[in-house]
Amino acid sequence: QWMTLDWKPRRPDMLVDPFGIGKIVQDGLVFRQNFSIRSYEIGADKTASIETLMNHLQETALNHVKTAGLLGDGFGSTPEMCKKNLIWVVTRMQVVVDRYPTWGDVVQVDTWVSASGKNGMRRDWLLRDIKTGEILTRASSVWVMMNKLTRRLSKIPEEVRGEIGCYFVDSAPVVEEDNRKLSKIDDTANFIRTGLSPRWNDLDVNQHVNNVKYVGWILESAPQPLMENHELCAMTLEYRRECGRNSVLDSLTDVSGADVGNLANGGIFECKHLLRLEDGAEIVRGRTGWRPKPVNNFGVLNQVQQKAPEN
Amino acid sequence: QWMTLDWKPRRPDMLVDPFGIGKIVQDGLVFRQNFSIRSYEIGADKTASIETLMNHLQETALNHVKTAGLLGDGFGSTPEMCKKNLIWVVTRMQVVVDRYPTWGDVVQVDTWVSASGKNGMRRDWLLRDIKTGEILTRASSVWVMMNKLTRRLSKIPEEVRGEIGCYFVDSAPVVEEDNRKLSKIDDTANFIRTGLSPRWNDLDVNQHVNNVKYVGWILESAPQPLMENHELCAMTLEYRRECGRNSVLDSLTDVSGADVGNLANGGIFECKHLLRLEDGAEIVRGRTGWRPKPVNNFGVLNQVQQKAPEN
Repeated sequence: QWMTLDWKPRRPDMLVDPFGIGKIVQDGLVFRQNFSIRSYEIGADKTASIETLMNHLQETALNHVKTAGLLGDGFGSTPEMCKKNLIWVVTRMQVVVDRYPTWGDVVQVDTWVSASGKNGMRRDWLLRDIKTGEILTRASSVWVMMNKLTRRLSKIPEEVRGEIGCYFVDSAPVVEEDNRKLSKIDDTANFIRTGLSPRWNDLDVNQHVNNVKYVGWILESAPQPLMENHELCAMTLEYRRECGRNSVLDSLTDVSGADVGNLANGGIFECKHLLRLEDGAEIVRGRTGWRPKPVNNFGVLNQVQQKAPEN
Repeated sequence: QWMTLDWKPRRPDMLVDPFGIGKIVQDGLVFRQNFSIRSYEIGADKTASIETLMNHLQETALNHVKTAGLLGDGFGSTPEMCKKNLIWVVTRMQVVVDRYPTWGDVVQVDTWVSASGKNGMRRDWLLRDIKTGEILTRASSVWVMMNKLTRRLSKIPEEVRGEIGCYFVDSAPVVEEDNRKLSKIDDTANFIRTGLSPRWNDLDVNQHVNNVKYVGWILESAPQPLMENHELCAMTLEYRRECGRNSVLDSLTDVSGADVGNLANGGIFECKHLLRLEDGAEIVRGRTGWRPKPVNNFGVLNQVQQKAPEN
């Protein structure tokens, strides 16, 4: 079983640093930060989007490194990594969402790192409703090091292991690894959206498309009846190469083993996804699971209004 | 002169509710909330984007209404407005940015409302660096009421005035009104980007495109050399009609009185903008001002890397 933390219900006014940049807890091994879900982080269902949750994962990962005093010059690189021109590259991400929080909910994010094989690092996250302790989301990711000049993967140098090794937790992944092969899909996919390209504001400080943006692009080809009636409950992504500011992408979605005409009905759906460059080079392979939306989110969907912008 | 508030430098640990949903200050007339700028709210320049700042404006406006106990069923509507099927519609927004905050900066947002003519409400915002008190951004907006069934504009009913009138502050706008007419631009514009359409996650709880998203679309047609070398320092938007989930938009930008070939050079630029439906119906007219980027943002831009996604 994955690590269980000492969660206890607390009155909000008893919390230290309730909405600050977070702090290290659990004998220095777990970083914890709270997020109040904001109005602009929710979508048509009044719930936080998967991208919002993944943004919170990114933010806690960086603040973990920062709070540990290990933030070098780069965006998540330690001082020794900076000296050696090494950067972290995510290769795999698995997310399981049990419930999406809504506006005003406060989500407590715990994150920690472990070894992954000989030369990788795993980072896990556990998101809870701070009022009830209910687990909302679990996520697990694998990272490797790359030399940013040669673009080759690197072992973890001893000096870097010296910086980060003491933070490694010995625990099973918070999401059981989905070992099913992510198979390649091609132009026979049910849904294809072509011509996607980064906007200026999609670029991060390295002028790269941030990996969270890829999720938005993957969902660009997910069929609308599916998105309207279902919510994403599980996602596995395999990052294969990055794309830069001038890339143009195709997003492909294949609804597995389902009658595509039934997407508006209840039931569980599984999709395969591919983001690829126009020349066919694969950027991200993915798999998503979908379940019917909870009924209590539907209230506002009937109030469809046309004509004037609202705040 | 616009309202000056009792800003004093404070140590972060002396603040009550430093990152919570905010509180009412200044004799009950001003709502104040702090935002720590997060890693995913910054762009390639390491600074917060204009959309991030506008999201914070939206969030404080809603939390102001909520904290005053006036949040009815809708998204910013008061109980009396809900009874009468009235919603707020923004007609005009002016933003002046003196400096963009960066990751980890804490921005203190103050907001308050005033009467605007006989049947409108003005909402102003003042954004400060909490450490220094430096004013980062000022914004002023005008709102009117609309019946969401008939889609007609409405006077402010007495019952609603009874709810909100006591919060009206008698002060000049925090941004001096830019009374220059926003002239119409057409297909002779320098830069046109066609075929923009909302993604599912761009829709708000009313299944409308949120007015902050319009800003992103406006900037879609701003020329890349301008965005790379300049930052937006002023913006005036006139909202004319909304667009819904199936709208397809054109974004037009006209660089006024400038040699378009010089966009990569220093200097001040002014642009005119239009978002319109494919049938020509105008959604938003706008004007933006641009100044050269501050030099100290350029450090990371040279580290252009290709090949793999980074966090």
